[in-house]
Amino acid sequence: MAILSDLGTEILVPACAIVGIVFSVVQWILVSRVKLSPERHSLSNSSKNGTAEYLIEEEEGLNDHSVVQKCAEIQNAISEGATSFLYTEYQYVGIFMVAFAILIFVFLGSVEGFSTKSQPCIYNKGEMCKPALANAIFSTISFLLGGFTSLLSGFLGMKIATYANARTTLEARKGVGKAFITAFRSGAVMGFLLAANGLLVLYIAINLFKIYYGDDWEGLYEAITGYGLGGSSMALFGRVGGGIYTKAADVGADLVGKVERGIPEDDPRNPAVIADNVGDNVGDIAGMGADLFGSYAESSCAALVVASISSFGINHEMTAMFYPLIISSIGILVCLITTLFATDFFEIKAVKEIEPALKKQLIISTILMTAGIAFVSWIALPSSFTIFNFGSQKVVKNWQLFLCVGVGLWAGLIIGFVTEYYTSNTYSPVQDVADSCRTGAATNVIFGLALGYKSVIIPIFAIAVSIFVSFSFAAMYGIAVAALGMLSTIATGLAIDAYGPISDNAGGIAEMAGMSHRIRERTDALDAAGNTTAAIGKGFAIGSAALVSLALFGAFVSRAAISTVDVLTPKVFIGLLVGAMLPYWFSAMTMKSVGSAALKMVEEVRRQFNTIPGLMEGTAKPDYATCVKISTDASIKEMIPPGALVMLTPLIVGTLLGVETLAGVLAGSLVSGVQIAISASNTGGAWDNAKKYIEAGASEHAKALGPKGSDPHKAAVIGDTIGDPLKDTSGPSLNILIKLMAVESLVFAPFFAAHGGLLFKIWK
Amino acid sequence: MAILSDLGTEILVPACAIVGIVFSVVQWILVSRVKLSPERHSLSNSSKNGTAEYLIEEEEGLNDHSVVQKCAEIQNAISEGATSFLYTEYQYVGIFMVAFAILIFVFLGSVEGFSTKSQPCIYNKGEMCKPALANAIFSTISFLLGGFTSLLSGFLGMKIATYANARTTLEARKGVGKAFITAFRSGAVMGFLLAANGLLVLYIAINLFKIYYGDDWEGLYEAITGYGLGGSSMALFGRVGGGIYTKAADVGADLVGKVERGIPEDDPRNPAVIADNVGDNVGDIAGMGADLFGSYAESSCAALVVASISSFGINHEMTAMFYPLIISSIGILVCLITTLFATDFFEIKAVKEIEPALKKQLIISTILMTAGIAFVSWIALPSSFTIFNFGSQKVVKNWQLFLCVGVGLWAGLIIGFVTEYYTSNTYSPVQDVADSCRTGAATNVIFGLALGYKSVIIPIFAIAVSIFVSFSFAAMYGIAVAALGMLSTIATGLAIDAYGPISDNAGGIAEMAGMSHRIRERTDALDAAGNTTAAIGKGFAIGSAALVSLALFGAFVSRAAISTVDVLTPKVFIGLLVGAMLPYWFSAMTMKSVGSAALKMVEEVRRQFNTIPGLMEGTAKPDYATCVKISTDASIKEMIPPGALVMLTPLIVGTLLGVETLAGVLAGSLVSGVQIAISASNTGGAWDNAKKYIEAGASEHAKALGPKGSDPHKAAVIGDTIGDPLKDTSGPSLNILIKLMAVESLVFAPFFAAHGGLLFKIWK
Repeated sequence: MAILSDLGTEILVPACAIVGIVFSVVQWILVSRVKLSPERHSLSNSSKNGTAEYLIEEEEGLNDHSVVQKCAEIQNAISEGATSFLYTEYQYVGIFMVAFAILIFVFLGSVEGFSTKSQPCIYNKGEMCKPALANAIFSTISFLLGGFTSLLSGFLGMKIATYANARTTLEARKGVGKAFITAFRSGAVMGFLLAANGLLVLYIAINLFKIYYGDDWEGLYEAITGYGLGGSSMALFGRVGGGIYTKAADVGADLVGKVERGIPEDDPRNPAVIADNVGDNVGDIAGMGADLFGSYAESSCAALVVASISSFGINHEMTAMFYPLIISSIGILVCLITTLFATDFFEIKAVKEIEPALKKQLIISTILMTAGIAFVSWIALPSSFTIFNFGSQKVVKNWQLFLCVGVGLWAGLIIGFVTEYYTSNTYSPVQDVADSCRTGAATNVIFGLALGYKSVIIPIFAIAVSIFVSFSFAAMYGIAVAALGMLSTIATGLAIDAYGPISDNAGGIAEMAGMSHRIRERTDALDAAGNTTAAIGKGFAIGSAALVSLALFGAFVSRAAISTVDVLTPKVFIGLLVGAMLPYWFSAMTMKSVGSAALKMVEEVRRQFNTIPGLMEGTAKPDYATCVKISTDASIKEMIPPGALVMLTPLIVGTLLGVETLAGVLAGSLVSGVQIAISASNTGGAWDNAKKYIEAGASEHAKALGPKGSDPHKAAVIGDTIGDPLKDTSGPSLNILIKLMAVESLVFAPFFAAHGGLLFKIWK
Repeated sequence: MAILSDLGTEILVPACAIVGIVFSVVQWILVSRVKLSPERHSLSNSSKNGTAEYLIEEEEGLNDHSVVQKCAEIQNAISEGATSFLYTEYQYVGIFMVAFAILIFVFLGSVEGFSTKSQPCIYNKGEMCKPALANAIFSTISFLLGGFTSLLSGFLGMKIATYANARTTLEARKGVGKAFITAFRSGAVMGFLLAANGLLVLYIAINLFKIYYGDDWEGLYEAITGYGLGGSSMALFGRVGGGIYTKAADVGADLVGKVERGIPEDDPRNPAVIADNVGDNVGDIAGMGADLFGSYAESSCAALVVASISSFGINHEMTAMFYPLIISSIGILVCLITTLFATDFFEIKAVKEIEPALKKQLIISTILMTAGIAFVSWIALPSSFTIFNFGSQKVVKNWQLFLCVGVGLWAGLIIGFVTEYYTSNTYSPVQDVADSCRTGAATNVIFGLALGYKSVIIPIFAIAVSIFVSFSFAAMYGIAVAALGMLSTIATGLAIDAYGPISDNAGGIAEMAGMSHRIRERTDALDAAGNTTAAIGKGFAIGSAALVSLALFGAFVSRAAISTVDVLTPKVFIGLLVGAMLPYWFSAMTMKSVGSAALKMVEEVRRQFNTIPGLMEGTAKPDYATCVKISTDASIKEMIPPGALVMLTPLIVGTLLGVETLAGVLAGSLVSGVQIAISASNTGGAWDNAKKYIEAGASEHAKALGPKGSDPHKAAVIGDTIGDPLKDTSGPSLNILIKLMAVESLVFAPFFAAHGGLLFKIWK
């Protein structure tokens, strides 16, 4: 039926994934050319180009060898801190994964009483499907696989980032353009590796599972949903743990260093400075990577599970079935071309070109991808087919599916630009917030909160339109592919997103290595652009999370055999109300965790300043390790309660109150959580950039508010500190809350449908 | 069928209302015995008791006459400012009311094309009902009536409060007990007047409308819903306008006076001090009164409209039909007895007895009311009857209805106590927030926000249980009477709520009149207890608003002839998502309004301090009137956009997108808005009391954080200022957002059902 043959699909998908991996390796090699050991560096120094540029732009009065040496040392410390934290985190998470894997097996196995007999299919009438026990086993396997892939993605991202940070600093000596390319290429390594890896593992898993399942696609793709659950569970702990780690260190370092002692950010005298830089890598890099991988895995699973009970699955049309994977495959190629625009086709020569270059990445990838989607929809889909729609089959045309994916893609771009408008200090919203610092921290906070609330409006309308269009055309499948559309340019999105923390780290290393303020200015310029792209990345993550969880919600409802979720029944309504409360409960936990951990950090930093003689004078070294340990211990301990809240809620509600109430909880937490997530991220981003606006003093208005240390600047620093947990801990973790509860409900749906709602059963 | 005869009902309801009015007049007379003019005061001075107490407790070194004179002057200034603001506000609102009344008439009249012919009833099959045009006319009349009653309630409340504030100050000279009784009695005047007035007007309106409608109860009670809409529309502008007024003045006064100039709160040298005190009366008193009156009117209307299409209405059982009004009638009697416990049965002798006395009011009224509800349910209801349940009739027993009302009543008490726990500085949550001030304003804000989020959990569970129980027993009628149950002790609730701003004003007057610090300490103690009761009052207002709007939502859905609101349809889901966004949009507007108005106020206050010679030294008087004008102008101008958002959303959505999407919007805004409202109120209350905790220095821990002017205290003041718009503007206005959109949808339901959803009609 489709133009592309099944064999073509079997080749295309892994080929694109491999191209992505090769491309990321090439980028890595290019980054690794920047040498970090003084010995080898002198070799590279003698190469023609290197020498020439070096002599022209090198800072005077700096001993090159000792600076490189210092950078390498600092990089080592950061890398070691990050690696050791992730190992500790993974130990705890590993225990959880094993325990939860057993839980999945027991719950799903018990659906048919661990029977090994085949059962009649639910949707594909008249056929026999594999026993529930098999689904339990394969769901467990794919859960572990998803978890492992997520872990690998986060870990590799962190490794690359800690490999690239010092290299970016060193390149900054040659000019802002060189530094930009190093940071961006490193981001691209992570973006492509993650996108390609996620696709490849999923593709292999499906093909291996098929050996057992054969023609039982219903069971096969039901089992595959475990992949999304595994990915998102890891992401939860990555985001929450990493988020607490990074913000405890950041808030603690700032409160004593910047506010009390008046020393600059990233000053090597600050005992929490290494922990702060480690935090960027474990929180913003590893956490964000795991989060977006989770979204990608979940939306693919949601699309596949709905497709498996639509005409694609029932008629065993492999190419059409793999439509979601083909979209992602083409996405890798599109992002590859897009990356070349930043690294090869054009060159950054001035600071003011950085932000436009990053924005261009978004626009180019979106335009190219629109053509890509049209092409895929033309070759990979039959011109007409049916999609499962809560009990009935809905006829859909291929151009309609193109519109579903396209609307998601473009909604992502709109969300990105709105986020930029509200968080970049080149526009009036952030400038107004900066202006309100004139009357102190209180008005700054009031204006910042109001800005965050306001920034929700357009993204919500963009999401609502995407939902309406894709839902109307292709029911829940439409939503799932709209989410995939938004995530189809994930490699580029992640590249520009990871670029931010790498530049942030590069600046920290420049400061700690005692490099000149010219270098620091360059890295600051990279970092300022990175702040905005980080906010854009969060916007994407939230927008896609909203679509993904709706798609998962739809898949859950289908699988739980509910045909309506009626707000007018008390079971659903109380679910809705309590669900809308959960993001608040979760945020209360994570924010208080950051606050408490930061208090401990503050006490330790103060203690060191008070008891280590010569620390302020720079003659004695602080004890970085204790601060790293405080952040590590706090984040490991504090990630458990919010993690438990998210993981246990669907299980408790589904088992005790049943699928209707659970459906209400999912819908409630989705519609409420997405608002808090967007507003928290943007409020935090705006405060951060309002502070930077005052510090940079680029306009008359900004100069009137500054300089550093003025009263308005102090007020801005308070806002920035409040924003830290909002934008980097509680806000982005909410994405995972809404996605994870939905995918967990989907995986456990067979159990809830069979045995759930105990309380009401007893009542009656 | 019911034990109570129809005649008995006809007598009981107005009799109770009149008892309430008489009681409030008596309280007023008792308050007015405190004389405020020096001449007459010397007369009262010669009375036996007066003289004796006077001589014993009078402060030394104070010229009695001049102090009384000063208090009278200040009171006059406050009263004039408040009266003139309300007049200005009412002019604008008056224009709106007339315009909206015309809109109601046109929209509802057009349902049957302004035909004057009778039409077949919708629910009472086989009977003929009055034409839609009549419903349009009577809805318009009851809308205006509701608006007028709300206006009257707010205005009288303000008058009483500005009458009582200086009297409380003067009584504080005799001791804390006397001052408490004066403030509390004044609160009771407002509480009883409002409860009785609302009941009486509704009762009379129903009886007058009946002259035309005769046996067409369906049309009669549909028209009566306009009463709720009118009440709530007024409340919206009262809350938003008053909220912006009070907080612009408060924030502006604090930022310059307390933070920059280091002068105490309510210092007469501060040019914004009169505006600040006026604000308490127009925001917290008039706004809160209008808000709770709106809730009361709406829940009564929601219950009546559902009852009219249940067996009560179809069989024309008047006593059972009036069950909601009888509950409110008995509530007045119960509250009357409860009040005597505070004013006559016991006497306050020490500061620490104040808060328990106020809490006892809540407990006593709840226990007595439980018996009252049981009694009413026994005498006013048939033992079994049927209730309309989305198209079918559900059999309900009288004891089930008792449980519905009771669960609402007790949920209110739980919400009250949870609110107290999270906002009173005798418990650990607020003390933790105070403790976090050690590390500055940033941690204070982080902990405060986390506290607010956390405080949502139990109230939401309490509301969820109430909804589940009452919904399960008696469908939407159950929800409506649960809301009435929560509001049945409204007279007591309002009394302890109004007590707060009166005490606050009394303290301000003491400071401005230059009375000794002993007097100020007494009024501060009254005020601290008032802060907590204000938070409790807000908790009640939010809890009841949630139930009321759900009841209205149910009535709307019934009237719009929808039988399911299915989250799984795109129309409903996008409504849900956008609805959940509206509270953010609304809060963004109101918070930014407060911020901008406060900035203007800050500039004016600074200008006066800089340009009026001798102001800081106390030799020159500030220009209070300009500050009053700034607050007035800002609040009038700024209340329009949020008002328009709330009033237009249901009209636009209903007309363009139809009833399903509108139902989604209502459900979304309800479940999302209630969370923000609770967390905003409690965060603000906690910050306020954390500051007071540090200032009072009553424990070792508190002393270590203080005294006034210390760094932790400064951090606490910043938190308090941020909390102002949260707890007094955006938070409480959200109650009205969710209620008003629901009641407006209900009133316009016939129009939407007939002509709504234009966009989808064109699309197809």
